[in-house]
Amino acid sequence: MGLKISVERTTAPKQKPEISQLGFGKHFTDHMFIMEYDAGKGWHDPRIVPYQPISLDPAAKVFHYGQTVFEGMKAYKTPEGPVLMFRPFKNLQRLNRSNARLSMPSLDEDLVMEALKQLIKADEDWIPSEQGTSLYIRPFVISTQATLGVAPSEKYYFMIILSPVGSYYEEGINPVSIYVESEYVRAVTGGVGNAKTGGNYAAGLKAQQEATEKGYSQVLWLDGVHRKYIEEVGSMNVFFKVGGKVITPALNGSILDGVTRDSVIQVLKHWNIEVEEKTISIDELVEAYRNGTLEEAFGTGTAAVISPIGELNWQGDKLTLNGGRTGPLSSRVYDFMTGMQRGTIEDPFGWIVKL
Amino acid sequence: MGLKISVERTTAPKQKPEISQLGFGKHFTDHMFIMEYDAGKGWHDPRIVPYQPISLDPAAKVFHYGQTVFEGMKAYKTPEGPVLMFRPFKNLQRLNRSNARLSMPSLDEDLVMEALKQLIKADEDWIPSEQGTSLYIRPFVISTQATLGVAPSEKYYFMIILSPVGSYYEEGINPVSIYVESEYVRAVTGGVGNAKTGGNYAAGLKAQQEATEKGYSQVLWLDGVHRKYIEEVGSMNVFFKVGGKVITPALNGSILDGVTRDSVIQVLKHWNIEVEEKTISIDELVEAYRNGTLEEAFGTGTAAVISPIGELNWQGDKLTLNGGRTGPLSSRVYDFMTGMQRGTIEDPFGWIVKL
Repeated sequence: MGLKISVERTTAPKQKPEISQLGFGKHFTDHMFIMEYDAGKGWHDPRIVPYQPISLDPAAKVFHYGQTVFEGMKAYKTPEGPVLMFRPFKNLQRLNRSNARLSMPSLDEDLVMEALKQLIKADEDWIPSEQGTSLYIRPFVISTQATLGVAPSEKYYFMIILSPVGSYYEEGINPVSIYVESEYVRAVTGGVGNAKTGGNYAAGLKAQQEATEKGYSQVLWLDGVHRKYIEEVGSMNVFFKVGGKVITPALNGSILDGVTRDSVIQVLKHWNIEVEEKTISIDELVEAYRNGTLEEAFGTGTAAVISPIGELNWQGDKLTLNGGRTGPLSSRVYDFMTGMQRGTIEDPFGWIVKL
Repeated sequence: MGLKISVERTTAPKQKPEISQLGFGKHFTDHMFIMEYDAGKGWHDPRIVPYQPISLDPAAKVFHYGQTVFEGMKAYKTPEGPVLMFRPFKNLQRLNRSNARLSMPSLDEDLVMEALKQLIKADEDWIPSEQGTSLYIRPFVISTQATLGVAPSEKYYFMIILSPVGSYYEEGINPVSIYVESEYVRAVTGGVGNAKTGGNYAAGLKAQQEATEKGYSQVLWLDGVHRKYIEEVGSMNVFFKVGGKVITPALNGSILDGVTRDSVIQVLKHWNIEVEEKTISIDELVEAYRNGTLEEAFGTGTAAVISPIGELNWQGDKLTLNGGRTGPLSSRVYDFMTGMQRGTIEDPFGWIVKL
């Protein structure tokens, strides 16, 4: 690993927010991790410092050419138990795949894991332990070289910030209504849709905004080539239960290789529920709905874990799933995943890392 | 217009770089323009201040979700003449189209024009007047709200920075070799390819890097749906002269509506040269090359104005254009465009704005 992480503790700890006021990604802890990269020198000066603004030249490439990647992870704590993380190395491996796609330097995954441990330890008293709460972890890399030529940056910051977050849903999990998007496209094969980079999220804002105006929570993205194959729902992967079998879009280069997605597939197989990664057309789903075999649908992601879909609007037709209520499989997967993550259900996969 | 621009002059002017050291976007002037936006309040506090770093919370959305837009313009000066700009309102209109696509607040184009004038006036002695030099102008908007929810920001900075730049080419214009990209895709219809946003540039870095490793300057982008229709070259629009007629890809929603592109089309028409905006397949170009009618090709953009293409590599076949030398039409368009922009050739279109 080589590099030693220095630690500067804050002398002015912030007041912690009320649990009821947590929300998502609105409050940040007392410390952050930062490390710099310079071409020819590599990553250097890894350090934990008080959470503070960063100062950048207005010409820094991140402001102009979107050369950024990030990850999202969570740490959990029960009042009596240790701090738990869920498959952190899987996120760090993806972070490096994203780095490669964006022509950014790779990170030493062991060093980043050590940084995560030390940072979370420094802010351990910020981790909420109430049901549905957790510590959201945001590692990210930004390009900081102050030149306007369109080329990979020669300087970067890698940072980790922490945010105590509340339940994504007020009371357990509630189904959301989804608008099937036919005008806007999130990503296309050959692009950066399978990298966790800012541009993918910026590209989705307009469709999300228009869906919200129509009364929908999120959009279901179709592929950019045929405009008929299911890709993601909002910024989550998506699963459908059709005639007793679970299907999810296969990794095709334009959707994100979600850690929750991969975990849910393995959990379903563990339960002997048939699950298939395949190309899924919107027509196939509408047909299943018409003949009564489209039983459930849900999104998967780190923030919400499982987000059941109660309604799909496809070109004005409203497809109500499981009577608009959370389906039994969605509930079962949610309870099992969050139970494992919080340490209240035994983890048969070896996914949980105790800090 | 309403808002008044305040001005704080620097007390420590920087040393200006040697003309031979200018390069592109490496040096910045003594001042910058900044204005802030808050939801419910709108744009406020427009001001010219000494060029300085900006301080942002590490959770600022620009670092995570790529919600950014920018523009590129130039101001020109001859030793004896006034400062000239080229169609600045066309760039400002596109800036607002980009803002709309990225769910960002629109700017008052008259206020921005006034800011441009006052900022360039403040740094007028930074504008180089040597042949091939100019003042590159970079207006940009970044999302600054410090929350991690994926949603349009409620806070933004709009800034303008200025960079004295040298000739894009050492000696006049030289042809570049271009690799026709068949693996990576820049953008797709329904996406953000026609907006000037960071993510489009980040998405192109990997292909550009691999082309460079193969000995090519840039890539020629094909469309993301059929993988056969020409889109852009690097970050420029592209023109081909085939059998005496000039063709350029039609605006299809995934390519940038370039100001230089539009100007070149009008210049060619002014010269009674036939020009057509159309869907152009790579097969059509290869066929024209085989039968000897592919006469010239060039890219267009603010930075290089005209960039002649000497060679196209399509799946290993090398297509040499005009013997690898700058073609007569490319030269003529370059001389006319840069002559108008510098004020040495009369502008018959009313495009030049004297500051």
